[in-house]
Formats: sequence, structure tokens, C-alpha cells
Amino acid sequence: MSAQREAAPEPAPSPAARSDREHLLRSWSSYADAPPAVIAGGEGAHFWDEQGRRWLDFSSQLVNLNVGHQHPRLVAAIRAQAETLCTLAPYHANAATSEAARLIADVAPPGLNRVFFTNGGAEAVENAIRMARLHTGRHKVLTAYRSYHGATAGAIAASGDPRRWPSEPGPPGIVRFWGPYAYRSAFHAADAAQECERALAHLADTIAAEGPQGIAAILLETVVGANGVLVPPDGYLQGVRALCDAHGIAMIADEVMVGFGRCGQWFAIDHWGVVPDLITFAKGVNAGYVPLGGVILSEAIAERYAHRAYPGGLTYSGHPLACAAAVACIGIYRDEGLIERARVLGETVIAPELERLRLRHPSVGDVRGLGAFWGLELVRNPVNREPLVPFNASGAEAAPMAEFAAACKQRGLWPFVVANRLHIAPPLVIAEQDLREGLAIVDAALDVADRYCV
Amino acid sequence: MSAQREAAPEPAPSPAARSDREHLLRSWSSYADAPPAVIAGGEGAHFWDEQGRRWLDFSSQLVNLNVGHQHPRLVAAIRAQAETLCTLAPYHANAATSEAARLIADVAPPGLNRVFFTNGGAEAVENAIRMARLHTGRHKVLTAYRSYHGATAGAIAASGDPRRWPSEPGPPGIVRFWGPYAYRSAFHAADAAQECERALAHLADTIAAEGPQGIAAILLETVVGANGVLVPPDGYLQGVRALCDAHGIAMIADEVMVGFGRCGQWFAIDHWGVVPDLITFAKGVNAGYVPLGGVILSEAIAERYAHRAYPGGLTYSGHPLACAAAVACIGIYRDEGLIERARVLGETVIAPELERLRLRHPSVGDVRGLGAFWGLELVRNPVNREPLVPFNASGAEAAPMAEFAAACKQRGLWPFVVANRLHIAPPLVIAEQDLREGLAIVDAALDVADRYCV
Repeated sequence: MSAQREAAPEPAPSPAARSDREHLLRSWSSYADAPPAVIAGGEGAHFWDEQGRRWLDFSSQLVNLNVGHQHPRLVAAIRAQAETLCTLAPYHANAATSEAARLIADVAPPGLNRVFFTNGGAEAVENAIRMARLHTGRHKVLTAYRSYHGATAGAIAASGDPRRWPSEPGPPGIVRFWGPYAYRSAFHAADAAQECERALAHLADTIAAEGPQGIAAILLETVVGANGVLVPPDGYLQGVRALCDAHGIAMIADEVMVGFGRCGQWFAIDHWGVVPDLITFAKGVNAGYVPLGGVILSEAIAERYAHRAYPGGLTYSGHPLACAAAVACIGIYRDEGLIERARVLGETVIAPELERLRLRHPSVGDVRGLGAFWGLELVRNPVNREPLVPFNASGAEAAPMAEFAAACKQRGLWPFVVANRLHIAPPLVIAEQDLREGLAIVDAALDVADRYCV
Repeated sequence: MSAQREAAPEPAPSPAARSDREHLLRSWSSYADAPPAVIAGGEGAHFWDEQGRRWLDFSSQLVNLNVGHQHPRLVAAIRAQAETLCTLAPYHANAATSEAARLIADVAPPGLNRVFFTNGGAEAVENAIRMARLHTGRHKVLTAYRSYHGATAGAIAASGDPRRWPSEPGPPGIVRFWGPYAYRSAFHAADAAQECERALAHLADTIAAEGPQGIAAILLETVVGANGVLVPPDGYLQGVRALCDAHGIAMIADEVMVGFGRCGQWFAIDHWGVVPDLITFAKGVNAGYVPLGGVILSEAIAERYAHRAYPGGLTYSGHPLACAAAVACIGIYRDEGLIERARVLGETVIAPELERLRLRHPSVGDVRGLGAFWGLELVRNPVNREPLVPFNASGAEAAPMAEFAAACKQRGLWPFVVANRLHIAPPLVIAEQDLREGLAIVDAALDVADRYCV
């Protein structure tokens, strides 16, 4: 019976699948190779396709769906705003946008009281860089090799990973440094404390060699996201803040992926009590239900625009529908205790389960994370730490990771696989039982990776 | 009674007004000067504020609200999609996104069959430039001094107007040229035909001097929007197309402001039967009800990505809620005949009325437009054409235009005033009677401008 089903011909593509193939170019994708799943619906931490195949979401789509699919309160808020006022030019004010700004300022670190809204994370980074340059009167921006900040000209140039290569040469004035990464230390450090100390010394040296009087900003992901779920060692962000203070450099914390609860605090940087000058956000602010991003500005940077126009903008800045979704989403985080829940799930379920996987599977070289954001680094050899697939692998070279991802999907789990890593970022509303089942699927799928181990 | 009302103290600011002032930084604005109107609702071509003041919208917000405020079919489509599936990662397919892509390809010029979705116009321009560079293997982009393409690093660098100055130096490789503008000819032309011929000769010279083998794209607004509602003379776009063909240069038509009916065709470029290689769009695609933009690609440019990943993307690319709004909006354009209506209103009402204003008011130096998109250029002296306010005026220098705008608003009309111009871009659903009343208000307000005439 099962063999018979497998032998049945593929059904004709649905209208959605056909139009997708004929008329769409998708982000970072080719259009004529493996067709994507055509998703028909979702609820909480699950979603399903047109054929009724169902997956548990361990990626929160693109690490944005913190409240899960189709949260009733968020859907109701979008409906209500749609019935009141969908859109408005950014030169007008309206209740939804004002309230979103107030709530965001309310949960932001002290002194960050003013919000500039964009449509997403890339535009947030673009504007944060502009604000830092205008505030300091300087041009250079320091950014990490292991980073991703978006794909517009300024944001992709500020990114460190290979996705920037096809867009080079980019704008002038970007200088890259190496951040802390204890498992593969650029500084030959023996432990986290030494990694922290040496990474800060490297950053200080880079500032000195570039000339601090020409440096507008240090831009960094508080917890590095797509480039490895790299949690900075205690003391690193404090050290960056001190270097910025010493040299009049603006500190930009890119919290597009980790802001709004992913790491068990409103902003990941709250873990270390560090107050940056600018925070970029998107994704979690309204779980991506309506496109929205933005920058939170310190009073010192904002006051330049008290009586002088900010020289940047966009048609949909402060979009009422997007902002109404943010208002509802922040209410959900608060009333359902989801920020705290991310911390508790991480400490009591994810961390101990992943440690168990690390001990059991030779392919698991490293486990790291914070709150509900974790990474498993897969290796061929746990001793010399050779990655399961080479840097920037594609095609046949990347096959071991593709097989691992396929093994997860076959078992009903949608994984977030990047390079030689599994990133784990479930919706914060995920039931503990579902989370444990998902981790059990990871456990089973890792047998595929283990086969490549020497 | 009236004097008594005027003497009454200003009411305390509403919560929305207070949060706006304390927590928001608005596009291209200062935050502590004149407070914005707090808009509470809208319907069709009208909107009103918290105090019940009501305006007729001659700017379609930011030239996006083609179907007017709160169109019932569009609101219903957003509700329905919100209840089905609000958001999805761009690596998945879904029915709303596929259908939006199919419909956009359907109304696009022949051969432009594939859509890459962004959140707005700036990101569309960023990606079109990337696509042109990868397609040609060249780097330079030619763009007009009188242009605006958005405010991310690549888009603002590609813009020609003063808004780019605070963001300079920008990315390398942008070369600017002068486009046709018969009223203030850069080429000392005597008429439109000569302006066309000389503008093309200037462009050809610039290509030769820059080296055609290094030029990836010519990027231009089909009808220049914020920089003056400059309708190209017949033959100009055909000439640009011929230059692109002769030198293997990609032609990018920026239709962010004029696409989807504003000028009385689906795309403004359809007026001249010219097929560009890439079209950028946003605004009118779904009237801005949910942030959306994108690029339409020719087959030749798209096929590079049949089996190779496109090196660009964004979390909300092809956002289901935004795309469902596009599907409904395109349906409204079709079923209500709004594209044709833009043309008819322009030809039968706006053009003759504006010509009447030009003859009556010495301050009206020039009248130009296409479909439902028009510009009045205001001057101090109709003979020497001295602008009513100087280039890039602000503060006291710009007072005559501010007074003119205030006179419109006092009479219940919301105008779109830029530099020394009134741009007229009402929702395409505007009732003819409302349109005539709005033009009568412009007539009355022009008396303010006339006072500055010598």
C-alpha cells in the first residue's frame, strides 16, 4: 500500500504552484529548480500545505513569528484597523502609529525614547547608519564579518557574510572586524573570558588603526543571528559600549532578529544592561503579520531633529495597519508572558535537551543559545571541529546538510538550516510537548549527520 | 461668536498627538515644530482628523491612494487574508502571492513576466539596479538630476534631487544626466520636438563619455514625479530604448509613483509603447493599504535565476497580506474602469480647468500632466519664469508656497505642494463634482500666489 502510494504519479501543480513557477522570483532563490511548498494555512507553531502536509515550525518562518500563526488577538487587531483606516501618508499622525511608538519606547532601554518606522530590517539599518553619520559628522562604520544586516545597498555592504559578494563594490566607508566566537576563536583564546578580552583588544586595535575621529558607528547584532547564533561572552557588549564612549562613536544594536523577546528579554541587549545609541528592529515587533521595522533613537541623537527635518523617509513609514499589529503584538507579549516564557523554555527544555544531543551525536560540535534562540553546529570531526559542510557550500558540497534538513521535514519538523548549523527558533507560544517532540525529531535526524562523521 | 471661538485656548493635545510628539520621528520631518494633523478616518477621496476637520485629498496621500480611503472590496480582501494566513517566509509559496504575481505580469508590457516583491519603492529600485548589474556584468547606472528613487543607500544615491545631499558620499557608479523639461530647457530648445532631440543627444554624449561598455542601466521615472510631473516629449522614451539597445544597457522604468493607473494606463510607459527591461512599482499596486513594492523582470533578465539563486531578498518578500491587497486592488482597477477613468478625468476636467487657471493667474507659469497626474508651476514672473520660491527653498524663503498650501487647507483641500509647484493627484475614484470643487479651491488659493507676482 505504501509502495503503491509512492509509485503514484505526481499530481498536476495547483494554480498557485503554477503561477509561482511562471511569475515569481523568490528571495535568494532560483525559480525552476525544486518547487517550494505551497502553504495553505497555519495555527500557532504549525502550518500546512495545499496537500495537507503539516509541519511544526522550528524557524518561526524567518525568526519573526514569535506569537505563532494566526494569533486571534493579532488577527482581530488587523481586522479592526483595516476597518478604521488602512493607510496614511507619513506626514500625518494617527492613533495606531503614535501608540506603537509609545509602547516601543516603553519597552526599550532607558533613554531610547523615539521611534522612526520603516517597512523592515534593511531599511532600519540604512536609517540607523544615516542617523549615526549625521550625529557624529563622521563616515566610517565598523561591522562584523559574521553578520547580516539586510540586502539594500547600505545594509548589504554593512553585512559581513558572503551574501554581500554579488553586490560589491558597495558604498565606501565600511570596515569589518572579527567578533567573539569561542568555538572557532579568531584570537586563539582558551575560554570565553579570554575570547572576550581578545575580541575587545582586536576591536580597539581596529578603531586605532582606522582613526577613531573618522568612525561614526559600530554596528553589530547583539546576538549574531543567521551567521551562527553567536551569543557574546559576558563583558563584550559592555566593552564595546566603553570603546564607543571613549571615542564618541555611536553604538548601533541590530535587534531585527532578536528584539521583542526572542532571547528572553524585550531586547537581547537587556541581558547585559547595556544601552546602545540606536536599536534597529523589525520581525518580532509585530511577528511579521504586516511588514514593519524601525529604529529607536537615543534622546541625544533624536534631538538634532527637534527643529530640523530628518533627511530620510519612505511612503509607508509608520503605516497604520502595521503599527496596529505592533500594538496588539506587544500586548500579547505582555499579557501572555511570552518574553519570560522564551527564557524559561530555553533554560528548562531547550538547553538541557540540546546538551543531551551533543553528548549523544558526534556530529554535534557545539551547542549555544539564549532564550528561545539556539544553534547546533554540525561537524565531521568533533576533535578538529571540521564543519560538516565547507564555508559557503552549495550544491553537492552542501548535501549532508540538505539531507539532514530533509530528514527533519519528512518527520514533520520545519528546520532552520544555515551553512553547517541548525538554528532553533520556535514560536514563543509553542506548547512544551510540541517543543519536546520537535527536539526528538532533531535527535532522530541527527543520525543522518552522524553518518558523515569520521 | 466666531471671534470668541478664535480666542478660545487650544485644546489639550489628544493622547495620539502627545505620543506622536514625544515618541515619533516622522519621514523628512522635525518633531517639535508644527504638530501634524491626527487623522481619524477617511472615505474615498476625503479624510478627517480627530477634531472632525475634513479635507478633500488632492495628493492621494503620497500619490498611492488610487482607489481612495477604505475601499470596501479592498478592506474585505485584507480581512479575508488576515483570517486565512497573515504572513509567511519568502521561501514558501502561497495562493495570494502567486496570484498577485500572475496579475501583475498580466497587466505589464509584453515580455515582462516575472515579479520580485519588496516592501516598497526604494527596495524595488535597489533590486532593479542589482539585477541590471548582474545581467550586464557592468556597474555604472545613469540617472536624472530631476529624479527621486527612494531613501536607502542605493536608491538615494540614484536620486537626483537635493534630498540625496545629506546622504553623500553614496555608493560609487552613479552618473547623472539632464532629462527633458521643456519649460526650463537645459538645452535651450525652442519646442518639445527640439527638447526631445537635444535631450537624447545629451544622453548619447553622456553614454559615449562614460563608456557604454561600463554602463549597466539607465534608470528613469517614466513621468518624473516629485521633481515636477515632467511628462517626457513624444519620442524621448523610444530614443532612450534605442540607446539602451544599441549599447546593451538595461532600461529601468521607475513606475513607483505612476504605475497602476495614475497616468491613465496600467503603466505610464504604455503611452509610448516602449518596453523597458525592468519596471519598479509600489504605491498604486495595492494603493498602499499594506506595504508592497517590487520589480517586474524581462524574461532575458529573469532567466539568469532559473537555476541559480538570485542574490537578494528580504523577510517580507511576497508578503501574503500585502499581495492579497494587490489582487483585490487590480480587480478594482479593472472592474471599476479606473485606469480609463484617470485618462478621461484628465482630458475632460483637469486639463481644461488648469488651462483656465493658467490664463487667469499670473502666478501659474506652466501646466502639464497626463491622466490624473498634473503639475502647476508657480512663478513670480510669467515672462522670465522666475520660480515663486528659489530652488531647494526652506523656512522664510518658502513662505509663499506655505501660504498657498495653507489657503488650500483652510478651504478643505489637502494639496501636494513641492518646491514651487502644486502637484495634483487625486484618488482615481474621486467624484467629478468633488474634483471640480477641489479645482475651484485651487483657483481661490492661487490669489495668494498671485500677490507675489511682479
